[in-house]
Amino acid sequence: MSLLAVGSVAFDEVETPFGKCEKMLGGSASHFSISASYFTDVRLVAVVGGDFGAEERDVFATHGIDTSDLECIPEGKTFRWRGRYDYDLNVAHTLDTQLNVFAEFKPKLSEAAKKSRLLFLGNIQPDLQREVREQVPNAELVALDTMNLWIGSTRESLQKTIECVDVMIINDAEARQLTDIPNLIKAARKILSWGPKALVVKRGEYGAALFTKDNYFAIPAYPLEAVFDPTGAGDTFAGGFMGYLASQEALDEAAMRRAMIFGSVMASFNVEEFGTERVKRLTPDEINTRFRTFKQMTHFEEIPFARTVVSSQ
Amino acid sequence: MSLLAVGSVAFDEVETPFGKCEKMLGGSASHFSISASYFTDVRLVAVVGGDFGAEERDVFATHGIDTSDLECIPEGKTFRWRGRYDYDLNVAHTLDTQLNVFAEFKPKLSEAAKKSRLLFLGNIQPDLQREVREQVPNAELVALDTMNLWIGSTRESLQKTIECVDVMIINDAEARQLTDIPNLIKAARKILSWGPKALVVKRGEYGAALFTKDNYFAIPAYPLEAVFDPTGAGDTFAGGFMGYLASQEALDEAAMRRAMIFGSVMASFNVEEFGTERVKRLTPDEINTRFRTFKQMTHFEEIPFARTVVSSQ
Repeated sequence: MSLLAVGSVAFDEVETPFGKCEKMLGGSASHFSISASYFTDVRLVAVVGGDFGAEERDVFATHGIDTSDLECIPEGKTFRWRGRYDYDLNVAHTLDTQLNVFAEFKPKLSEAAKKSRLLFLGNIQPDLQREVREQVPNAELVALDTMNLWIGSTRESLQKTIECVDVMIINDAEARQLTDIPNLIKAARKILSWGPKALVVKRGEYGAALFTKDNYFAIPAYPLEAVFDPTGAGDTFAGGFMGYLASQEALDEAAMRRAMIFGSVMASFNVEEFGTERVKRLTPDEINTRFRTFKQMTHFEEIPFARTVVSSQ
Repeated sequence: MSLLAVGSVAFDEVETPFGKCEKMLGGSASHFSISASYFTDVRLVAVVGGDFGAEERDVFATHGIDTSDLECIPEGKTFRWRGRYDYDLNVAHTLDTQLNVFAEFKPKLSEAAKKSRLLFLGNIQPDLQREVREQVPNAELVALDTMNLWIGSTRESLQKTIECVDVMIINDAEARQLTDIPNLIKAARKILSWGPKALVVKRGEYGAALFTKDNYFAIPAYPLEAVFDPTGAGDTFAGGFMGYLASQEALDEAAMRRAMIFGSVMASFNVEEFGTERVKRLTPDEINTRFRTFKQMTHFEEIPFARTVVSSQ
């Protein structure tokens, strides 16, 4: 298998200034897998309850996502999250969280899963992330996501997990919180000093940046006139990033730079509708069209200046 | 003459968490002209008092800035601004403003000034900006800066001024305030609908964007590990942008894109030291080196994706 993703599968209930949606497929692993499925084969490790039905499973099946490692606890209930966004769509207000079967989630990897080439450790407790990472020792590239909750409550364990991954993917506020360094460039150097060879920093409407030991790469966000629902944008970005990398032979910086663009493209689609609605019905052409737009909107000719005075006519 | 700039010349007193500087050369026209002088010939229209001495004049002279249109009122005092930055260097706290001779500033243009090829209307009262603009009817390109004060107090006059310029240069908060539209992309379209063919939006540590009727161009900021004093960064950006354009025969979008980079390069130097200290001792090589770094940090190969599964080895 090409790409293995561990994380949450959930039912989300989201309210924004533009509408409301009840019981839609959500969770980090769902957004990630659907996004990545456009680029490569994906296998999902997560847990759901007896209320996870045929409709939701069908979304995964349609996208060729391998759910052999999706554990089901028939007597339990699937993780539920209820949240609200006001006009500042950058801030999610959590109204209710019911961990349900996710509270006792212990990822179990099949033998096939352990042979994955790339591994994405979605946002779960850092000890669990490390246990999964250790079960895929031959992965060519392991990427890690986390959230402010784990930075606050399990910092030491999180740092140990960071030490054993190749790429860390977080947002700018998390990078600052994790390092206690307000300057993002310095914060990034600190995180790279712990082990990862690359750090991806998501900056919402301002784009994203890729830090490596010797280089810096930064891109704007795709210009959107309206953001409808930002839920899952980060995981959708990670899905595009990791899915694209899994489709490439060479996992070098040039590939990572293109992966940053594909991640941003997927995230830009994600926020246009509720949940996974927009991303789940994409076409490769739509994805490549936005990829090309990124090239157009960042291109300039590399012509150094020489002082000149052009006179008026 | 190639480029004419109208704006303020001031003495600034600035306090930051890293130090304090008393009575240094400041003001929008000073920062703008020194920055632009690396690219082209600049003429300055502003007013100073009898306290404006040989040392300050020497800075302009050294950079070949034509001060024939710099009015001096010997019995008056030069505009003074005193401000403080805390650790959030994005917010300037004004401690004291003494307009002095600037309060009665009526820009007077010499015949030579009226023949300028490019015109920059720095941040002054919009009626005055329009009077200046009307005196340079044959300018090939006119750019405008403003600030929250004029947006709040003289909006109608400001909009009239916007209608008669080619390029507007503002920051993202100002674009939102000016249009009452929170989404920047929509706000930009609104401003372009008033007349300008291009809108430059400065986003501080997040870079800058260029909006034209049919295109969008966005760049990150130069990655700095420390920002020492942000005073004048916006005018220094505008100086690099307009100075570079003035050095070019064709004032098309390709030139404007490169001008965005040179503007960002100049602003990145400006914030590294107090006032104009860093920018005034730059070399063309230093500027071109950062320009090339911008290319490196934004470059990626335009290779569309095709779904592939690369197996584990």
